[in-house]
Amino acid sequence: MNWKARLLKLSGLMPEMDDAGSLAWGTLADAAEDAELVFLGLDEGKACFAAVPPEGDSSPRMANPQLWSLMATLRADDLALYGGARSIVDWHARHRFCAACGGATKIAKGGWQRTCTSCSTEHFPRTDPVTIMLVEHEGRLLLGRGLGWPERAYSALAGFVEPGESIEEAVAREVLEESGIVAKEVGYIASQPWPFPSQLMMGCYAIAENDEITLDTTELADARWFTRDEVAASMNGDADAPMNTPPKQAIAHHLLNWWLEKHA
Amino acid sequence: MNWKARLLKLSGLMPEMDDAGSLAWGTLADAAEDAELVFLGLDEGKACFAAVPPEGDSSPRMANPQLWSLMATLRADDLALYGGARSIVDWHARHRFCAACGGATKIAKGGWQRTCTSCSTEHFPRTDPVTIMLVEHEGRLLLGRGLGWPERAYSALAGFVEPGESIEEAVAREVLEESGIVAKEVGYIASQPWPFPSQLMMGCYAIAENDEITLDTTELADARWFTRDEVAASMNGDADAPMNTPPKQAIAHHLLNWWLEKHA
Repeated sequence: MNWKARLLKLSGLMPEMDDAGSLAWGTLADAAEDAELVFLGLDEGKACFAAVPPEGDSSPRMANPQLWSLMATLRADDLALYGGARSIVDWHARHRFCAACGGATKIAKGGWQRTCTSCSTEHFPRTDPVTIMLVEHEGRLLLGRGLGWPERAYSALAGFVEPGESIEEAVAREVLEESGIVAKEVGYIASQPWPFPSQLMMGCYAIAENDEITLDTTELADARWFTRDEVAASMNGDADAPMNTPPKQAIAHHLLNWWLEKHA
Repeated sequence: MNWKARLLKLSGLMPEMDDAGSLAWGTLADAAEDAELVFLGLDEGKACFAAVPPEGDSSPRMANPQLWSLMATLRADDLALYGGARSIVDWHARHRFCAACGGATKIAKGGWQRTCTSCSTEHFPRTDPVTIMLVEHEGRLLLGRGLGWPERAYSALAGFVEPGESIEEAVAREVLEESGIVAKEVGYIASQPWPFPSQLMMGCYAIAENDEITLDTTELADARWFTRDEVAASMNGDADAPMNTPPKQAIAHHLLNWWLEKHA
């Protein structure tokens, strides 16, 4: 029997770093005696765990500037491990009770389930499918600026898949709702987990039937068509670029590169 | 102001049918006085609603033989409407309490949200992303028989996307876990909502690196490689076909047709 184990060091939902700029690890003795432990998997022969934050911890769940900075410095494997761990310990912290009966739930199956102590209903971690899409009209790309975003920040439109929709239907509905643009010929490009708190981002591409934008001002501050040259200059960080594009950790960055290469 | 409205007739979670074999509709007066009503959308100038089943209703949530028969007879638009309605009223019925604090929740925003009456946390309908995949090795296709399925029933392997995974990573992990097969070159084919209770099925394709199957007997009763001729004969319902393939309402049926055409 091998008892080697290590505990991911978290401060609330933020990771702690070691001197080398990697994720910091402690031992199981570092966890509170009554802490719920989630099994993250085996790494280098050691069982890796993360502790669910104590009740009452109300750390922010969305990505924030501090987290964006961290994401820019973490190695890809550390970022994937931290993202998965954060998403699941946050899910536990926000699901201490049973949605079916209101009873207390407890951690089960190494942290990949919670079970109601009253009615025995089983609850599983949630992942929300989100579409994010490049919409093109005669060589120009539709990008939007969200409410509260910095003045020059533009990215691909995005939205949650609603019950009863396919990915393709969700793309067309979201684009129509947010911009008044009719999207057709929807295709899939790539996907990425986004654990803030628990999205599955599905990158798509579509052709616009029209180009007159009718903005939904409850969703977007602005939406505009950009030429390939404008997108390329912005991705390149040129001084005269018309906008700031998403950072490289975001799937939107990958999608914009895909589009530039498609039209290279 | 237009007060025209109609209520989808449900018996538990099963639809009621009119004499023409379409979904049956009543008026809002048919709903219990304290029933929670979900707004489904406008149809022919009438607001369409469905009522959340009363507390204590424990109708089965999964697809059952009666439902499969119904799905074979309903028109596509009726099936889509019923599927969406069923998925969301079922979600309401199973989320009467707040997972964050255990307090009672109440319906909000026309049925597309529940809000905790105690801590004000907002809850949204859940959609679980599921991968379902065709895995090919040198012209043969990997199909499996689930535990408890009829002896001759085979379909594409499938599984939920776990927190922290992309679609492509989920496909590779699921295939490896269930069959011991290493899948590479994962691509996306098509998606379909599956409202029993609330899945988003994402159909994918992959190439197998090996063909020796190591069955996970906790997940599958069997898994086998089938030639194109065997799949074609089975989809055609030939007397000497080696298996029964999924019915046309299932995305697996569409995927198998896609594969037959790919190798036509």
